[in-house]
Amino acid sequence: MKQSQLFTRTKKEAPSDEVAKNAQLLIRAGFIHKEMAGVYAYMPLGLRVLENIKKIVREEMNAVGGQELMMTTLQPKEIWEKTDRWDDAKVDNWFKTKLANGAELGVGLTHEEPIVDAVSNYLNSYKDMPFAVYQIQNKFRNEKRAKSGLLRGREFLMKDMYTFCRDQAQHEQEYEKIVAAYYKVYDRLGLGDITYRTYADGGIFTPRFSDEFQTLSEVGEDTIYVDEKKRVAINEEILTDENLEKLDLKRDELVQKKGVEVGNTFHLESKYTNALDLYYSDENGEKQSIVMGCYGIGVSRLMGVVAELFADDKGLVWPENIAPFAVHLLNLGENEEAEKIYAELKSKGIEVLLDDREVSAGEKFADSDLIGIPWRIVVSKKSLAAGGIEVKKRSENESKIMTVEALLQMLNK
Amino acid sequence: MKQSQLFTRTKKEAPSDEVAKNAQLLIRAGFIHKEMAGVYAYMPLGLRVLENIKKIVREEMNAVGGQELMMTTLQPKEIWEKTDRWDDAKVDNWFKTKLANGAELGVGLTHEEPIVDAVSNYLNSYKDMPFAVYQIQNKFRNEKRAKSGLLRGREFLMKDMYTFCRDQAQHEQEYEKIVAAYYKVYDRLGLGDITYRTYADGGIFTPRFSDEFQTLSEVGEDTIYVDEKKRVAINEEILTDENLEKLDLKRDELVQKKGVEVGNTFHLESKYTNALDLYYSDENGEKQSIVMGCYGIGVSRLMGVVAELFADDKGLVWPENIAPFAVHLLNLGENEEAEKIYAELKSKGIEVLLDDREVSAGEKFADSDLIGIPWRIVVSKKSLAAGGIEVKKRSENESKIMTVEALLQMLNK
Repeated sequence: MKQSQLFTRTKKEAPSDEVAKNAQLLIRAGFIHKEMAGVYAYMPLGLRVLENIKKIVREEMNAVGGQELMMTTLQPKEIWEKTDRWDDAKVDNWFKTKLANGAELGVGLTHEEPIVDAVSNYLNSYKDMPFAVYQIQNKFRNEKRAKSGLLRGREFLMKDMYTFCRDQAQHEQEYEKIVAAYYKVYDRLGLGDITYRTYADGGIFTPRFSDEFQTLSEVGEDTIYVDEKKRVAINEEILTDENLEKLDLKRDELVQKKGVEVGNTFHLESKYTNALDLYYSDENGEKQSIVMGCYGIGVSRLMGVVAELFADDKGLVWPENIAPFAVHLLNLGENEEAEKIYAELKSKGIEVLLDDREVSAGEKFADSDLIGIPWRIVVSKKSLAAGGIEVKKRSENESKIMTVEALLQMLNK
Repeated sequence: MKQSQLFTRTKKEAPSDEVAKNAQLLIRAGFIHKEMAGVYAYMPLGLRVLENIKKIVREEMNAVGGQELMMTTLQPKEIWEKTDRWDDAKVDNWFKTKLANGAELGVGLTHEEPIVDAVSNYLNSYKDMPFAVYQIQNKFRNEKRAKSGLLRGREFLMKDMYTFCRDQAQHEQEYEKIVAAYYKVYDRLGLGDITYRTYADGGIFTPRFSDEFQTLSEVGEDTIYVDEKKRVAINEEILTDENLEKLDLKRDELVQKKGVEVGNTFHLESKYTNALDLYYSDENGEKQSIVMGCYGIGVSRLMGVVAELFADDKGLVWPENIAPFAVHLLNLGENEEAEKIYAELKSKGIEVLLDDREVSAGEKFADSDLIGIPWRIVVSKKSLAAGGIEVKKRSENESKIMTVEALLQMLNK
């Protein structure tokens, strides 16, 4: 697309009430707009990144057999009372609202109960399992404090998956298959090397540990202890000698780090299905409890993590897999040539942002660094005289003059 | 996908409290799940249809230069007070909620105010216009009654677009460009012939008419008067001699019909931009008012309209453009051959639902009619003996035996 058409503009300053680096940069570069603390709207550049992350998550969830659906935000209180998760004294971060007739409704903060309720229309027999369903949807949580930008939102985009299995053995298989898919997601986002499967508290209804996926970052809210050799970690909250022994970890082999939780997976046992009266019939026609798992990935949080971690002092630095555009083409006064190259790159299926604005070269360079598109291509009198276009990776300092053909080859197009 | 893996099942009966035909059929066929009146979750088959409709709408909005973004559901009351649309006495279908600190929030029912607020970060000069932004997003409206299935929801998916122009002339051009895009959307959904641009009340802040797009249907809530020759209509609400004269319509050339409003376009003048203190500087540096338009399409409502209108007494009948799958392949006991054909069709990029369940042929036929995939392909001993597969369109009665090659040719693959 042409930058002159893009309705957003970069800004020199972020709003003074915005303290998180990820949000400061994303606001200045025109990716997001702050509606209120913890609530951000996605402008076109930001939505493109978010959609790219969704695509990766969706592909990996589909690859392990996940069936995508879309639950509702408005929630009837009755199903949440059955699991004792309606009362504000029990769950303290509900947003609630009311129907015109006065009936109380919840504004969806998670979806175990409605998923079980929906599934109960279809699930009867042991033959119906295992299966996994998921959605990528806005969640709403009434956080007391929200000052970490996209890292802790009151309204945020989440992928939540739920598995239904006939017994623990079947559940174990599904669970590990999904954990493997999580690794693939983080790898594709460029976070694989610094994201650790981290043992954490399993919650009140299972003696087992849950797994968190923690990306190392100084701005993380969690303290974790990493075993670099085993590539696992343990959350400080459960760091006891007893747990270390259970997990076969040694205290002196662990290094303390800060982490951002970018995903989690839980063993739910039969807590929700039993409470909502969903059972299945086994081979002998006998009623049995279902074993459930749930699996979250913070999609908008991942956008914040990538923004925060990869940025340098000039601005954002997007990995190629999720960048809003592949190429930022800066036209420095060579309109005809720039338009030709723009058309050629687009014809090869490359996503290009053409900076065709009537502003100074310095402003174009500064904006390009702030926006952080992986490849910067400059077309200028100088570059043409030197034999082509000037190509620079956002993450590197050196630029090179090359022909458009050589660029296409380098981008595998 | 294989139907044995699909976690939803068809049902003989819809819930007894569901009176709308569209919802009855969509629930029975496993496309949607009723959370409460006017609030439906989308199961995998339903989500596929919804995504196909979104894709068509998105393509046509992009084709007229629309820039996609995503606003938030949670809304601070301050910006709505500026336009006097916060008070329940003025706007009677808000869902409202509260932050933990007691501050009131709205649950987004439309987005003029937040869009203007976001745009005010970027829009300064006459050079910045015209532009159009849009989103495809859940809206929440606290309807007193909701008994028309997907035709009138409390939570529903909507495309809403907003244009910003420097003057009426520029606005006029943008407006008609978007109206033309609307016709394309309805054409691609198979509703073009029965959808009329319909003059309607423009609202309190413009003397002009707005345009509704009304699809003829007996279940429509609106009464409209159609001029078949001119291919336009007028809403009963504004049917006066004075208006007929303004619109150059003659009472005796109009036919009374029932319609479902599947879209609308409004002239907003400068009501919202002025109220939110957004102006622009013209060539002389003088402050001027902005002319805005807004443009809605009910995405989930369209799914309901198509379901309702095209269904026959056996079930749903999806147009090829938005069907959940292109082909429903029924395996009647010829596993090896069916798997081979399934693989071949998929390799050609055809979306296939393979009915590989161990149920009777009669059940497979009935379910296929209920689900309504455009092409039904039967592989049976009989079809193979006759030289191939039995091919039938859902919308026709006759079936034909043909080879897989002939089918591929017919589907242009």
